[in-house]
Amino acid sequence: MRLPVDADRLRADIEANAAFGRIETTDPAARGRTNRTGTEANREARDRLVDRLADAGLDVTVDAVGNVVGAWLPASADPDAPPIAAGSHLDSVPEGGIFDGPLGVYAALESVRAMQDAGVEPDRPVLVVSFTEEEGSTFGNGLLGSSVVTGETALDDALALENDAGETLADALSRIGYRGEGALDPASWDAFFELHVEQDTGLESTDADVGVVTTITGITHCTVTIEGEANHAGATAMGERTDALAAASEVVLDVESAADRIVENDSETAVATVGSLSVSPNATNVVPGRVEAGVDVRDVERESMEAVVATLRDSLERLERERGVKTTFERPFDVSPTPMSDRLRAAAHDAAAEAGRTAIDLHSGAAHDAMRIARVTDATLLFAPSRGGISHNPREWTDWTDCAAATEVLAGALVRAAGVSDPTVE
Amino acid sequence: MRLPVDADRLRADIEANAAFGRIETTDPAARGRTNRTGTEANREARDRLVDRLADAGLDVTVDAVGNVVGAWLPASADPDAPPIAAGSHLDSVPEGGIFDGPLGVYAALESVRAMQDAGVEPDRPVLVVSFTEEEGSTFGNGLLGSSVVTGETALDDALALENDAGETLADALSRIGYRGEGALDPASWDAFFELHVEQDTGLESTDADVGVVTTITGITHCTVTIEGEANHAGATAMGERTDALAAASEVVLDVESAADRIVENDSETAVATVGSLSVSPNATNVVPGRVEAGVDVRDVERESMEAVVATLRDSLERLERERGVKTTFERPFDVSPTPMSDRLRAAAHDAAAEAGRTAIDLHSGAAHDAMRIARVTDATLLFAPSRGGISHNPREWTDWTDCAAATEVLAGALVRAAGVSDPTVE
Repeated sequence: MRLPVDADRLRADIEANAAFGRIETTDPAARGRTNRTGTEANREARDRLVDRLADAGLDVTVDAVGNVVGAWLPASADPDAPPIAAGSHLDSVPEGGIFDGPLGVYAALESVRAMQDAGVEPDRPVLVVSFTEEEGSTFGNGLLGSSVVTGETALDDALALENDAGETLADALSRIGYRGEGALDPASWDAFFELHVEQDTGLESTDADVGVVTTITGITHCTVTIEGEANHAGATAMGERTDALAAASEVVLDVESAADRIVENDSETAVATVGSLSVSPNATNVVPGRVEAGVDVRDVERESMEAVVATLRDSLERLERERGVKTTFERPFDVSPTPMSDRLRAAAHDAAAEAGRTAIDLHSGAAHDAMRIARVTDATLLFAPSRGGISHNPREWTDWTDCAAATEVLAGALVRAAGVSDPTVE
Repeated sequence: MRLPVDADRLRADIEANAAFGRIETTDPAARGRTNRTGTEANREARDRLVDRLADAGLDVTVDAVGNVVGAWLPASADPDAPPIAAGSHLDSVPEGGIFDGPLGVYAALESVRAMQDAGVEPDRPVLVVSFTEEEGSTFGNGLLGSSVVTGETALDDALALENDAGETLADALSRIGYRGEGALDPASWDAFFELHVEQDTGLESTDADVGVVTTITGITHCTVTIEGEANHAGATAMGERTDALAAASEVVLDVESAADRIVENDSETAVATVGSLSVSPNATNVVPGRVEAGVDVRDVERESMEAVVATLRDSLERLERERGVKTTFERPFDVSPTPMSDRLRAAAHDAAAEAGRTAIDLHSGAAHDAMRIARVTDATLLFAPSRGGISHNPREWTDWTDCAAATEVLAGALVRAAGVSDPTVE
């Protein structure tokens, strides 16, 4: 079966949502927004979603961490059957794009409306979910709403997080009217689907319509400090220096070549990045005395992540010996690779085939709410194409026809996964 | 001859001067001050110098850029003979030490007093000079007072420089009562001596009393930008990246190894430093898109400075080819190595020998006012030992006996260079 979605209705939703926190740009190819959790723009985006869920006959609730859920109970459905859920998030990074998050929320709603329009009635409730603070740009912890409902983060800890103004998440949610009660229970769901923009060029480069994610990458963040000795750049002979930046430069290149080696020999999805590096005192005429660096290591294989981290630690030890620096190493963040549900992936591939859309398997190099939900129930992640792979940027773009095509696959996959009692749709 | 100096009088002057802008430290080995041009502390330090110059019978004038000069005309001297001058500066970097600058000013005054005490009368005027804004910490341009009087910097340009509060140097000098008239004319001087703390360990490691500087290093500052492509650290495969920080790390190591090679093969005084490095967007989970780096290259040989700069430029070209980054190169600051006067160096060595002090030849890796004065007349720079080479830091230290020993050599060198008419001292 092919379940047609209303491309214009979907576009209207995403464009209306894009108005909340819209940012002006002089680049005609750019269309950004800043929609941070707890802001007026965030309240407006949430209010509009609630209205649109209600318009489609969904029963809307808000949980204690501000996650918004619309529940559709088809006439023929068993209200006690484990529901099937789909969604994503409405918040954005500062000066982000208009698709990252909202596409997945409104595609979920559009899927429900498409079922309603086609008279397709799943035999269980269907939930449309919008998670709070996925980006972590405002209260510091990403995937926050999905982490709370899967037990990764305690509710009280989440509510006590503060934004730059020192306001707690609890207060910010109360202020905008989205401090609800209770908690979603995804462990009781039959399945969760998230459609998201790819943020990479895997689909664009193969001209595929939709990506079916096999595994969400594991992520380790390491924080490294390198202590040398700050000294006069003129009065300190080359042989007398302990230059923290020269040592750090070796670390950057060691991390890069470790990842390159793994890509060549073991796992082509491995990536490692020294993304941040701060130098003290950072004056042209002073030998750097201290460097702090942030290292991001990801792969779908735990083994190759550990191999990069081991190289990083070896590099630090070697530099202590060879350059006389002192180093510290911390690993403040670590999540294992998360495989997606085979059952739901098969449903997505079948739905794509039936809709005449090209689907390819991909891994996700970025974290998404589906990663958290996969800890407690079957979950999968679908990707729509991203122009040039650009994301977290007003130049992020997915063509409206691509949005609709991917949503059609989502809708079909939901129907397949949910089970359908109307025989006319087989 | 040995010309004894009064070690206690010199110490009293330096300690009294250290009170102006004194900073509190909890480190018992530290004794810092912040004496920035145009501040109240700076006015107090200048006022006290003027008083002490007058106490010794010197005729005090202040020029248009605030340089303070005390002129001693011995009874037997030809008032029209080219004077002999000595001095340094009273300003400091923020949280600097108490010797960097003041030692040279008060050692010059103490030399005059020692001559007076010993009845030594040079046959020409002797000037004690304190230059304005040597550090450049407050109005941005170092060696400012000496640059104006040697024509390197136009007076009006200097007076128009602004501090962080937006006040011009002209206004700041007026406010503290040190906006004088006319300009010193070092081209009319017979010689200029500057005694300064070494800020390195050449004297300490050889147990020498005084350093006689052969050449003040040349200095080039290069500003380099490396433009890659900022991208999601998870979603961007290793082969798809243009990582500006990885490229910059190669530059840091190329610059370091270029200097190491020159030290080994050609000129052991060569140094090169990537002292500053700023990464954008500087987030752990974003592939660095842009790096700006500040490179400091110094040597007493112009050739080896150029060799390091050539390596830097080759490195940038190679990285454009191999890594696809875009780079820019600027060279906003360049001064050639400045040899010191052989005549004055010989006078210093002779004076040291006569005083029973050990003098060694050294180069200066840092810039000093003597570098500017050497453009227009014979100049030399003497060093007193610096404990651990530490400078621009409250832990900067030179033992009081070392201060006196170096001052004794300065006084002897001044007498030798000036010519003496009192036969009793031969």
